[in-house]
Amino acid sequence: MQIKIRHEILSYASLLISGIVMSLSIQTFGTQAEEIKTVDLIVHGRYVVTMAGDNQVIEHGAVAVDDGVIVAVGHGSEIAAKFSAEKEITGKDRILMPGLVNGHTHTAMVLFRGMADDLTLMTWLQNYIFPMEGKFVDPEFIEVGMSLACHEMIKGGTTSFVDMYFYADTGADVIEQCGLRAILGSPSIDFPSPGFKGWDDSFAAAVKFVKNRKSKSGRVIPAFAPHAPYTVSADHMAQVSKLAKELDAPITTHLSEDRAELALVLDRYNTTPIKHVESLGLLENKLIAAHVVHPTDGEIKILAKYKVGVIHNPTSNLKTAAGISPVPEMLKQGVRVGLGTDGAVSNNDLNMWEEIRLAALLHKGVNYDATAMPAETVMYMATKGGAVAVGLDHLVGDIAVGKRADLIQVDLSGPHMTPLYDVISHLAYAASSSDVVTTIVDGNILMDNGKLLTLDAEIIRQKANEIAARITRALNKE
Amino acid sequence: MQIKIRHEILSYASLLISGIVMSLSIQTFGTQAEEIKTVDLIVHGRYVVTMAGDNQVIEHGAVAVDDGVIVAVGHGSEIAAKFSAEKEITGKDRILMPGLVNGHTHTAMVLFRGMADDLTLMTWLQNYIFPMEGKFVDPEFIEVGMSLACHEMIKGGTTSFVDMYFYADTGADVIEQCGLRAILGSPSIDFPSPGFKGWDDSFAAAVKFVKNRKSKSGRVIPAFAPHAPYTVSADHMAQVSKLAKELDAPITTHLSEDRAELALVLDRYNTTPIKHVESLGLLENKLIAAHVVHPTDGEIKILAKYKVGVIHNPTSNLKTAAGISPVPEMLKQGVRVGLGTDGAVSNNDLNMWEEIRLAALLHKGVNYDATAMPAETVMYMATKGGAVAVGLDHLVGDIAVGKRADLIQVDLSGPHMTPLYDVISHLAYAASSSDVVTTIVDGNILMDNGKLLTLDAEIIRQKANEIAARITRALNKE
Repeated sequence: MQIKIRHEILSYASLLISGIVMSLSIQTFGTQAEEIKTVDLIVHGRYVVTMAGDNQVIEHGAVAVDDGVIVAVGHGSEIAAKFSAEKEITGKDRILMPGLVNGHTHTAMVLFRGMADDLTLMTWLQNYIFPMEGKFVDPEFIEVGMSLACHEMIKGGTTSFVDMYFYADTGADVIEQCGLRAILGSPSIDFPSPGFKGWDDSFAAAVKFVKNRKSKSGRVIPAFAPHAPYTVSADHMAQVSKLAKELDAPITTHLSEDRAELALVLDRYNTTPIKHVESLGLLENKLIAAHVVHPTDGEIKILAKYKVGVIHNPTSNLKTAAGISPVPEMLKQGVRVGLGTDGAVSNNDLNMWEEIRLAALLHKGVNYDATAMPAETVMYMATKGGAVAVGLDHLVGDIAVGKRADLIQVDLSGPHMTPLYDVISHLAYAASSSDVVTTIVDGNILMDNGKLLTLDAEIIRQKANEIAARITRALNKE
Repeated sequence: MQIKIRHEILSYASLLISGIVMSLSIQTFGTQAEEIKTVDLIVHGRYVVTMAGDNQVIEHGAVAVDDGVIVAVGHGSEIAAKFSAEKEITGKDRILMPGLVNGHTHTAMVLFRGMADDLTLMTWLQNYIFPMEGKFVDPEFIEVGMSLACHEMIKGGTTSFVDMYFYADTGADVIEQCGLRAILGSPSIDFPSPGFKGWDDSFAAAVKFVKNRKSKSGRVIPAFAPHAPYTVSADHMAQVSKLAKELDAPITTHLSEDRAELALVLDRYNTTPIKHVESLGLLENKLIAAHVVHPTDGEIKILAKYKVGVIHNPTSNLKTAAGISPVPEMLKQGVRVGLGTDGAVSNNDLNMWEEIRLAALLHKGVNYDATAMPAETVMYMATKGGAVAVGLDHLVGDIAVGKRADLIQVDLSGPHMTPLYDVISHLAYAASSSDVVTTIVDGNILMDNGKLLTLDAEIIRQKANEIAARITRALNKE
């Protein structure tokens, strides 16, 4: 970092002390003299939505970023008085806010996007998803699928995500390269799955991944990912609980998703899913539990007590007919709830703005309460609340000094964003993925004015289409 | 219309008959000779989704348009063999489909977008909507608000809409100028409203509007718009029924929207809203009934019997906490159901893609049935089914010879549209407003490759912001 002095102060100073090096004595010039620090990046916002503390919206604000860290937040004039930067991004007609946190997805499944919809769960799984995963999911599939997904997420302003899919090492490579931040779970399941014969080798791979995968950037956090209480035996789930605690690693899993799961857990263990995994020690870990559609009131208390991160996936829960999660009640009882898209086969995209909007709308309708899930609540869930839920809040989720610089800009010039009375309302009810113009992670610009900087969209699309052509041929043969 | 002959045929013909005018004898040259008709416009589509008949998707298709009418639909090569056009629009990476039909909205209310959210109905209406409407809704408001709304609709691929808001004559002028198609209801209500003291003058204005408003373009269809069974007395509703029948004019109204309405109608008339308006003769008209959230099973049969056009507004019904309409059951019983956004105060945008997606998702979740409301069904509701519901299907709703050319193109190049297994799935679950690149109404291009041609976006935005600034000052004073 260099120290610069503003031109007018330098001239004034020069008159006084004729060219003596200023930097040591700058503080002595009183109120007019100020250090101008050169930083890597200054990003402006017509509105800066910090999601930090009470004063969430700064008009004509700016953020100074250095070495990937937010070093200052304030009015544009204050920032300009203290910092200069090689790269400065305009805030004209733009909201500056924290990047979105997608708490649950299976990103590489974008390659199956729209392959099979509107089917019963069993037809869908047994005739489409399982056979096509068995035939096509390999490291190449993961590399291409995850690159395509990262493209979509960068375009839509998602900066962190929690993933669970096969060949986690390949996935980690893609994340490192494209610049996003992720908690990446290596999945373990009692049945054969891509690359694995069953529990033993899938769990061994997860242990190896969690122990050995290093991230120079710090942006990839390896995790355990036991699939669900109905696909992982009690013994195996307890095995994960124990080892994750020893290794202090996060766990991501599916929990209390649909009524078939409730029936199966009741039949097999004579209890409910959340109580079942509690008895196996799972909740004593840093647990990210996707779905939680059918918690009992007692289970909601358990989730709050253990500080489980619950990820609400409203689109997926509707599309797969899992049901509607009692999110307002969970929030009321202090459960940490974030938002997720789930994989593209049950969505069919990775657009967090659709989850934000749907979460804001859905619970009003089903509870006959227009005040349920206000805009502020869902925007918190999509940013800081999501970061808290997945355990990334020490790094990201809000715009505050010391946090990593995961920032996005949302364009305000579209007709659907005009006029503007309330920034948070527009973000929750009117903004869409295509309004995101800038995506920054760890201070690195991944998209600048709509232009993707770390991925080659054309090559990714071409490779994705090649794989899809092979899948289509296989589907037609079946 | 001119008759042209393809160059190679002309040369061949010239050799034979040395310059004699070809047009009369063209048919005699046998299989090699074909008339090439010059038309106004040819639009291509990598996929043409006609929404007409069974064979809904034509790969590498095209549509020929002349004098605002679709004159041919087929494979690109077939169209090229028969037609040439001054203006040709590429179909590379684009779906060509019918424009969307927004069956219920109050467009000019976009100027209140995001002014007040997440409030109980009474606080929202009495502290925000009613006082601000009273203060600010005048012809200038309508002109600016409707222009802004038309901008948003053109950008998002809505080509027809059913509107109900004040100063209908001003609204009609805007629609004529911007090129969209609308059924425009002049609202009548028992209480004072912008421009009116009560029922008598608001109904008189509606009668005048329906009788006298002429549309040279044929794109603006005047309609009656009695507000709702709880704001219009039985006598007044019967008055509308009678006169609309005499004048053969459509009626648009709100019906069976929320539980407060049910209670009020029960209390006042000892029946349910749909049976109530049936008794007043309303259903014997060309009725477009918005919402219909709480029909009884008997009422669903009534709606089917009278061929009432029901408009499902899923976003609005959730946001205002009205509830969830039993759309799958209505469809099963043969009710004509279209989709609508409602006004921007209960949405907060006019994005039909969000209604499509939400309609596809919502009913799966609440009915625990992943096969409910498949993609084809919702795409039908947004196009041809919507046109049927609002009574525009003789003009628009599908791509078929003889229909008016209301067409849109949807870009397929985004990461969220990659790869592609099923065009209809992508339209229902992945497409968004910003994917629309071309909007054509009546053969006139309103947006070409993302560029707006009939409205000045900058001026509209500036005027909208000026009005919003006045509203903000008034809100701050309250």
